[in-house]
Amino acid sequence: MNTIRGKFITVEGVEGAGKSTQLSYIESYLRQAGKPLVVTREPGGTPLGEEIREILLQPRADGMADETELLLMFAARAEHLSQKILPALENGKWVLCDRFTDATYAYQGGGRGLDKSLILDLENLIQGHHRPDLTIFLDLPVEAGLERARQRGELDRFETEDIAFFERVRQAYLDRARLLPEIYRVIDASYTIDEVKHQVNKVLDIFLSHNE
Amino acid sequence: MNTIRGKFITVEGVEGAGKSTQLSYIESYLRQAGKPLVVTREPGGTPLGEEIREILLQPRADGMADETELLLMFAARAEHLSQKILPALENGKWVLCDRFTDATYAYQGGGRGLDKSLILDLENLIQGHHRPDLTIFLDLPVEAGLERARQRGELDRFETEDIAFFERVRQAYLDRARLLPEIYRVIDASYTIDEVKHQVNKVLDIFLSHNE
Repeated sequence: MNTIRGKFITVEGVEGAGKSTQLSYIESYLRQAGKPLVVTREPGGTPLGEEIREILLQPRADGMADETELLLMFAARAEHLSQKILPALENGKWVLCDRFTDATYAYQGGGRGLDKSLILDLENLIQGHHRPDLTIFLDLPVEAGLERARQRGELDRFETEDIAFFERVRQAYLDRARLLPEIYRVIDASYTIDEVKHQVNKVLDIFLSHNE
Repeated sequence: MNTIRGKFITVEGVEGAGKSTQLSYIESYLRQAGKPLVVTREPGGTPLGEEIREILLQPRADGMADETELLLMFAARAEHLSQKILPALENGKWVLCDRFTDATYAYQGGGRGLDKSLILDLENLIQGHHRPDLTIFLDLPVEAGLERARQRGELDRFETEDIAFFERVRQAYLDRARLLPEIYRVIDASYTIDEVKHQVNKVLDIFLSHNE
């Protein structure tokens, strides 16, 4: 008997776009739809990946070279793919992941200004032909998002960047969305939580109707 | 006034080749020769790099994907180069480093069997045109070296590999030496400590006479 391969759904968002709330909503939607589900996150998702996440997110007095940040992201991702994501998909499970390689294009490419062709090389190297089946991007003007994020409290190493950094992050996400219209669904996260859920719901209804 | 750029010397060795002893000897030789010196090691050499080293060397029940290991090595190296090695060389200091990129060719390339062209891509990406000026490779038949290493006590994640792994590591070092005769000096470490020191001494005398 052949197991039908599961679907790989990633959720991306600018700061303060309500990603955690919508992730919970997507999880419950997929469970109610009867999809066997693995929920995970990047950077992290494995014991080793979570150790790397710790290094990546903690504020550091000594800074971090941009190339180091990029390689740590992909080091965690290589582990995540081989230990968790690919085995789950091959076993017919659906995988819902909080951020994936698009976040690298956005933060290390857009935000830090690292060469996108370099990110592409690492993506091909680590992922082979594996890409998300659906990427839900929660979009929001930067100022509005940062205001929401600040209200949450303590900031990690990325959240302390300046506004221009986040403008570049957002622009890189929008560029990715234009480049990959068959994968990306851009959702306007400036509405209320319930309105955003409603939009997410529509995206998932359509996606599932094509993937029964 | 122009500062004369320092020299970058790396020391490589198979397990049990007496690398630590010879490193101390090289350090004292260079200090006596009046060279302003930075002594460092890989993986590690910076606070962040030492955190990555910890992840790389600790034995893990959950294993580690080979690509993850490779990217962690270069993540630590990017930090090491930008924060420590290049600034020191530019300030006219000599840098003596316990292992460098040749160890990646040997352990991740030879030992793990990762594609060497991939390592070359990462080397070019992270290092640009920067390469060691001198690499001293302490060579020893694998069985003899492992016997010495075992007598040292507790083994790290690499030291628990099997003999075939270390044969590939040694062969990869010897291949590098053949490829880079102008940089590599291969020293037979099967002799006594004093005899090996004598060989190292000759190599350093010649190197310094060309770099006064």
